[in-house]
Amino acid sequence: MATRIEHDLLGDREVPADVYWGVHTLRAVENFPISGVSIGQYASLIEALAAIKQAAALANGELGLLDVAHVDAIARACQEVRAGALHDQFVVDVIQGGAGTSTNMNANEVIANRALELMGHAKGDYRHLHPNEHVNLGQSTNDVYPTALKLAAWFDAQALLVAMAELRDAFAAKRDEFADILKVGRTQLQDAVPMTLGQEFGTYAVMMEEDMLRLREAMAFLREINLGATAIGTGINSHPRYAALVCRKLSDLTGIDLLTAPDLIESTQDCGVFVHLSGALKRVAVKLGKVCNDLRLLSSGPRAGLGEISLPAQQAGSSIMPGKVNPVIPEVVNQIAFEVIGNDLTVTLAAQAGQLQLNAFEPILALSLFRSLSHLRRGCETLARNCVVGITANTDRLREQVERSIGIATALNPHIGYVAATEVAMEAQATGGSVSEIVLRRGLLSQQALDDILRPEKLARPHAG
Amino acid sequence: MATRIEHDLLGDREVPADVYWGVHTLRAVENFPISGVSIGQYASLIEALAAIKQAAALANGELGLLDVAHVDAIARACQEVRAGALHDQFVVDVIQGGAGTSTNMNANEVIANRALELMGHAKGDYRHLHPNEHVNLGQSTNDVYPTALKLAAWFDAQALLVAMAELRDAFAAKRDEFADILKVGRTQLQDAVPMTLGQEFGTYAVMMEEDMLRLREAMAFLREINLGATAIGTGINSHPRYAALVCRKLSDLTGIDLLTAPDLIESTQDCGVFVHLSGALKRVAVKLGKVCNDLRLLSSGPRAGLGEISLPAQQAGSSIMPGKVNPVIPEVVNQIAFEVIGNDLTVTLAAQAGQLQLNAFEPILALSLFRSLSHLRRGCETLARNCVVGITANTDRLREQVERSIGIATALNPHIGYVAATEVAMEAQATGGSVSEIVLRRGLLSQQALDDILRPEKLARPHAG
Amino acid sequence: MATRIEHDLLGDREVPADVYWGVHTLRAVENFPISGVSIGQYASLIEALAAIKQAAALANGELGLLDVAHVDAIARACQEVRAGALHDQFVVDVIQGGAGTSTNMNANEVIANRALELMGHAKGDYRHLHPNEHVNLGQSTNDVYPTALKLAAWFDAQALLVAMAELRDAFAAKRDEFADILKVGRTQLQDAVPMTLGQEFGTYAVMMEEDMLRLREAMAFLREINLGATAIGTGINSHPRYAALVCRKLSDLTGIDLLTAPDLIESTQDCGVFVHLSGALKRVAVKLGKVCNDLRLLSSGPRAGLGEISLPAQQAGSSIMPGKVNPVIPEVVNQIAFEVIGNDLTVTLAAQAGQLQLNAFEPILALSLFRSLSHLRRGCETLARNCVVGITANTDRLREQVERSIGIATALNPHIGYVAATEVAMEAQATGGSVSEIVLRRGLLSQQALDDILRPEKLARPHAG
Amino acid sequence: MATRIEHDLLGDREVPADVYWGVHTLRAVENFPISGVSIGQYASLIEALAAIKQAAALANGELGLLDVAHVDAIARACQEVRAGALHDQFVVDVIQGGAGTSTNMNANEVIANRALELMGHAKGDYRHLHPNEHVNLGQSTNDVYPTALKLAAWFDAQALLVAMAELRDAFAAKRDEFADILKVGRTQLQDAVPMTLGQEFGTYAVMMEEDMLRLREAMAFLREINLGATAIGTGINSHPRYAALVCRKLSDLTGIDLLTAPDLIESTQDCGVFVHLSGALKRVAVKLGKVCNDLRLLSSGPRAGLGEISLPAQQAGSSIMPGKVNPVIPEVVNQIAFEVIGNDLTVTLAAQAGQLQLNAFEPILALSLFRSLSHLRRGCETLARNCVVGITANTDRLREQVERSIGIATALNPHIGYVAATEVAMEAQATGGSVSEIVLRRGLLSQQALDDILRPEKLARPHAG
Repeated sequence: MATRIEHDLLGDREVPADVYWGVHTLRAVENFPISGVSIGQYASLIEALAAIKQAAALANGELGLLDVAHVDAIARACQEVRAGALHDQFVVDVIQGGAGTSTNMNANEVIANRALELMGHAKGDYRHLHPNEHVNLGQSTNDVYPTALKLAAWFDAQALLVAMAELRDAFAAKRDEFADILKVGRTQLQDAVPMTLGQEFGTYAVMMEEDMLRLREAMAFLREINLGATAIGTGINSHPRYAALVCRKLSDLTGIDLLTAPDLIESTQDCGVFVHLSGALKRVAVKLGKVCNDLRLLSSGPRAGLGEISLPAQQAGSSIMPGKVNPVIPEVVNQIAFEVIGNDLTVTLAAQAGQLQLNAFEPILALSLFRSLSHLRRGCETLARNCVVGITANTDRLREQVERSIGIATALNPHIGYVAATEVAMEAQATGGSVSEIVLRRGLLSQQALDDILRPEKLARPHAG
Repeated sequence: MATRIEHDLLGDREVPADVYWGVHTLRAVENFPISGVSIGQYASLIEALAAIKQAAALANGELGLLDVAHVDAIARACQEVRAGALHDQFVVDVIQGGAGTSTNMNANEVIANRALELMGHAKGDYRHLHPNEHVNLGQSTNDVYPTALKLAAWFDAQALLVAMAELRDAFAAKRDEFADILKVGRTQLQDAVPMTLGQEFGTYAVMMEEDMLRLREAMAFLREINLGATAIGTGINSHPRYAALVCRKLSDLTGIDLLTAPDLIESTQDCGVFVHLSGALKRVAVKLGKVCNDLRLLSSGPRAGLGEISLPAQQAGSSIMPGKVNPVIPEVVNQIAFEVIGNDLTVTLAAQAGQLQLNAFEPILALSLFRSLSHLRRGCETLARNCVVGITANTDRLREQVERSIGIATALNPHIGYVAATEVAMEAQATGGSVSEIVLRRGLLSQQALDDILRPEKLARPHAG
Repeated sequence: MATRIEHDLLGDREVPADVYWGVHTLRAVENFPISGVSIGQYASLIEALAAIKQAAALANGELGLLDVAHVDAIARACQEVRAGALHDQFVVDVIQGGAGTSTNMNANEVIANRALELMGHAKGDYRHLHPNEHVNLGQSTNDVYPTALKLAAWFDAQALLVAMAELRDAFAAKRDEFADILKVGRTQLQDAVPMTLGQEFGTYAVMMEEDMLRLREAMAFLREINLGATAIGTGINSHPRYAALVCRKLSDLTGIDLLTAPDLIESTQDCGVFVHLSGALKRVAVKLGKVCNDLRLLSSGPRAGLGEISLPAQQAGSSIMPGKVNPVIPEVVNQIAFEVIGNDLTVTLAAQAGQLQLNAFEPILALSLFRSLSHLRRGCETLARNCVVGITANTDRLREQVERSIGIATALNPHIGYVAATEVAMEAQATGGSVSEIVLRRGLLSQQALDDILRPEKLARPHAG
Repeated sequence: MATRIEHDLLGDREVPADVYWGVHTLRAVENFPISGVSIGQYASLIEALAAIKQAAALANGELGLLDVAHVDAIARACQEVRAGALHDQFVVDVIQGGAGTSTNMNANEVIANRALELMGHAKGDYRHLHPNEHVNLGQSTNDVYPTALKLAAWFDAQALLVAMAELRDAFAAKRDEFADILKVGRTQLQDAVPMTLGQEFGTYAVMMEEDMLRLREAMAFLREINLGATAIGTGINSHPRYAALVCRKLSDLTGIDLLTAPDLIESTQDCGVFVHLSGALKRVAVKLGKVCNDLRLLSSGPRAGLGEISLPAQQAGSSIMPGKVNPVIPEVVNQIAFEVIGNDLTVTLAAQAGQLQLNAFEPILALSLFRSLSHLRRGCETLARNCVVGITANTDRLREQVERSIGIATALNPHIGYVAATEVAMEAQATGGSVSEIVLRRGLLSQQALDDILRPEKLARPHAG
């Protein structure tokens, strides 16, 4: 295999002649053989890195720190990467030491070597364009890497919002479809008072909508970047006008309205925004988990369960029990929720372990966030498409349960009092009788009054019409 | 001991004649002998419950559902409880089953019996005023309890904000005091580039300020209550105008600008706001933990540590090592942070376990939040008062470290390039020499240029002046 | 108020004349006003501390390092504390900085002052007997405190085992009582194949039994103590024979077969045993939570739920819904489980934050363990006594569900194959028909063969008899 | 693309003609597009599944339930898969609903189709050998899947043990190498009493050794399997002698001494063993994290840190700071520890969500365990090879710190008392003087006595020689 020689502070090393990465990447690959998953598999991250390098080159060019040929070559290389090229050259492991330095070095090397090619030079001929001196000019891993994470998280969160909206709409459609189907509401798994199945699904739509709002609020904080901070936030080695300029360039390139953090030292060491975002994702997971628990419970059966709704059959449920169909889609979403909550803990642990001017543990924090964002997105999509849209109601069973319910005795309180109503309910429970029969037999209310009070539609929506 | 007889759906029971609680409270005390801590020890919760009962009585009175004598007696009893009376009558355990029903029942009974007294009746003579039929009129545990939790959390969060502001101000004072003290910044615990000690403490002030903002945002969601939802959110048994009216009364009583949730069914089962608040508290814990880690590290020594700052001595540090003084205040705050993060997990677990129209697990969620809120408050107070205000800088040591630093070679990059600067730094590290000597010996820069580049003040604030 | 003057390295302070604690305790009370809960409320911990101080005095006496009068006075004071005296003098907060030093100092002072009294001296007259020089002789917080935590955890874990055994026996009794009651087993909340209700409860008995075994294994590691390690494990200031001797004395006093850790430096900084114990408790919590979820699910209803079993009514379930009874006992145990899992996280965080020769965060770790141990114990007790022993089976409903079940088609596989059985099951599901009817109509098996295959008792216990 | 038609309870579907998987796998791939990672990437799991299918075929053959041709073909196919073949045909996502059914179905289909080929039939021609009727004979996902997880976890844990032993040995070698290098021990980051650097590293060796013991104990429980339980543990459709026989066959094939769980119903629904194993891994993570924190702290510098040891340089540490070298290997291990602790939470959440006769959430539990096992293994390897073996001691600095230490005053306690020693230490701290000077000036001890007491070797090992 043809190789070329590269040099770093530890000495010379051969790298394959045809790869775009260099010696720093090689060291990192050897040091971190952890997960077998390369950063190149996270497209949003690679695109974010390339956008940052492009913005930096443009800003440095405008400031007169980088000549036009360098700016052009770097910008073209970055543009290609942002369009999807060379992602397979981002080979360092997603789990890595060094606070993201290896990721940044990998990006510098790939972009430098592609830029060299575009300038007509050989890969590795860094005299013409150097990964650190040109591609990384005015930058440090400590401002590039967290900024890249913020952009990547933004892209992924946008995609998650689209999926959440699809799921919210699917619930809302069921809310409308089931608007008039009466059922027994339950608190603490015990029969409570009547409601409609539409109200039940409407709740899920509201939950998704609220979580989308919370997620958007969390995303807003991602817009605050620390480019220009360089090593620790003092801005050493960057031009005084660089921070503002690169922020504008990057906003233009990405279409995100970015701003520079007011205190760059604080911003460089602080992981609060990631903790906040992860918290918002955990909240989504908590809600999705609750909804899926409900769906599985309401569709339990087919004969010995609640059997209120039926989920669409998606696959054979058992290798041994013929004809069994299981709620596999909610089940997979439940599991994603468990993973996201675990990821949130990893994010928390990584965030609280930062020391002094930097948090060295952002790579695992980033991986955890990326996993949560993408799995939640796919979970919302499969839940909407393969489950919610196909849910049907078992109307007869639902109606019958309302009619047999003891919980309707609640509506008697204003008329016969809580104490008397309790006695009625206790007798119904003990004898299996109906609330109406007992009220009438005890002479507590007339048939007509009772019919008016216990009208199911009124019980479910007492304040309607 | 004198007793009176009370009755519930399980039969008759004797309760001590002089207590204000009744049979429902008695059952709960027997059922839940868990933590030995009664709800009465959480003053904010008791005050919130009393305010809700008072607002409900006023609203029901205005709606003509409760006569004036009842309204007055209930309101007076509530007013007394809000002023601190009878908290010792709130005896159910903070860890309880039943979704808060026992807490609500305890409140109904205490207020009913105090109101009975005020009306000139004997305790337990519920014919004149009944815990459920009057005090609880138009209410359910399922709207009263979460509303009470929100109010109590609001009160406690307000107190936390005051303590956080005190801590932020203590850090800000040190930021100003240490504004001109140079030191070596560190990334990944390795010497990086110069900064000032004032910048270091300024960072902590910014962190506290940002967390206060996030906490305030989380608090805003606490204002959305579900009074009027009654059992499951359909509003059964409440007057159509009750929800709006009780919300206004409660706002007036508490001074909090409350609003009624737009979807009461969703609001009744949803614990998102508590997850969100707990997430904000976890974020505070993460930051406080990080800051305390830094304080302990920077003050390590006295002779074999970093020794950059000295924390005020607060107590003898060892029962065996004479004269040893330990960073006990940051240590206790670190531990509070660990507890808060654990509490957040408990909140998450409780929230995700809600089923159908209610979450039965709010009591442990509430306890976890209350613990976090109060311990964080006290942690901020002791950190500000017993530690931060007394911190002193070891100026000579800090300055000397800057002068011996290899990290200042970073500033040479724009002048001699990253590659040459790396060689200088490697030689300094290998030989123990200084960066300046090596640059001069190698003839890379003139003495004058070097002096200008490596001026410490300029290194710490490259863009200043 | 009468006071006496005490002195420490920070100067003189007045303490109330009648208290047994001294200046070190006073400082700690001022420094750590966090939870308002004093260590004196944890009786096991106070008894453990006193036993250690007693054992140390006896060992030092035997080694000729402490004269008889001192040994006797200290031993008598300790004996009193172990019998329950003076616990109200242990006033430092359970959440404290300083790695337990304040707890150890509080113990030294209380025991010294009580011993002084017993010797006929005034409290505070430390010339005759000194908290550090005599009570703490040959000791350091860093060996005393973790040893005390281990003993206290052992005592509490023993009590938990008793409660778990009671719960296991309650489940086992139901296993026998329900041995012949057929029911539909469920996987993924969908009807599966028949089993007995006794088998279901037998499972819970096995789970408790297995968790008791795991807990006992975890407890075994608590027996390994580090007395004699003193400050960091090198044993500085302790007599060469002290470690072995104090271990034997302490074993005698407590009846626990203790041993000295082979590597005292490792043992002094390592919190692995607490992580392990907390993990075992978390496992108990996971199982208890699962069992309570099942109990709540199986007893859901009374009319619109699974309704397979009935839990004993313990209290009115609702302040608004008359006659409603809720599964409040399982609910409180579910919440304990959430708390224990949160506590385990706090333990983990505290354990992983240890640095170099000590873990400064053991106090919060200890508090978390103590909470978990006692709440689990009380949870098991209330679950056994107030719930499990009173559970009844709804036999008719259970039997009917078995007979209507589609899952029994599983038993046809060996006779007609999975593919044909699937078609039968699908038709049953689509038409509401019974598996038997369809098999006969399709002519797949004779009535006699079918009767034999689908005999419910055989389905539930295919290998029995 | 050529296709073949397959059929399941939802109807007909085309699958590519050349793939070994079938319609059930196809459905699962469509339903669960979550992580993009297929189960085939977890070699241990695939090998475990194949071993189980092989053992089942052999057992069923011996029981006369499967004819020789079928047994042979299935066994040969399984043997090939166990040798590494066809792993790319295991295409269902690692995150999946259905309690592992899709994984089991994928295995059944791949093995059936390969067996069909070996028998000379076309893939998909299930009349000759059927995935469910033959490959899955006597089995259910609910016994096959958890058994496969246990075997796979066993294989991976064995590999982890090898890596842990390598790391333990690396620490032990440093223990010996540094046996005579004196240093200042630290508690709470404050200077304490002397020890040797060898003792410090010896501690890490002991920690690894203890964790290996705990891991082995946890692994022992993996040996208890539930093959023969079939659907819910009652053993429906399995031969009475099958459970014992398949266990023996599987033991023979894997070399693991397996046993059948005494209560198969309990074993089928219980995830305790996985919680236990994850807890053991979390403990490893806690220890590794602590050790890496120490390594990073002790090697902080090079000039403004503790600088006690030097870690081998592995890569350039910064894209902007020339010559900076960071502790990247401990940093990556810290991050693995954070991930493992997060994974443990996911395992806990999945385990506690089991309902009635099954836990539907084992796939995410399994993925979390597999990630933890493999990342810990690789973390131990890189830590041992790329860091620990190359650590060097900065002997002069260490020795000098001991000599300047105030903590040596501790050794004076037995000679001048804690109170007098405290005054000496306070003066040393205030004046910068040495303990010896002050003792002599105060006339507390003779030079000779002092020299004897403060001999560094004796301070570090007071009981040696």
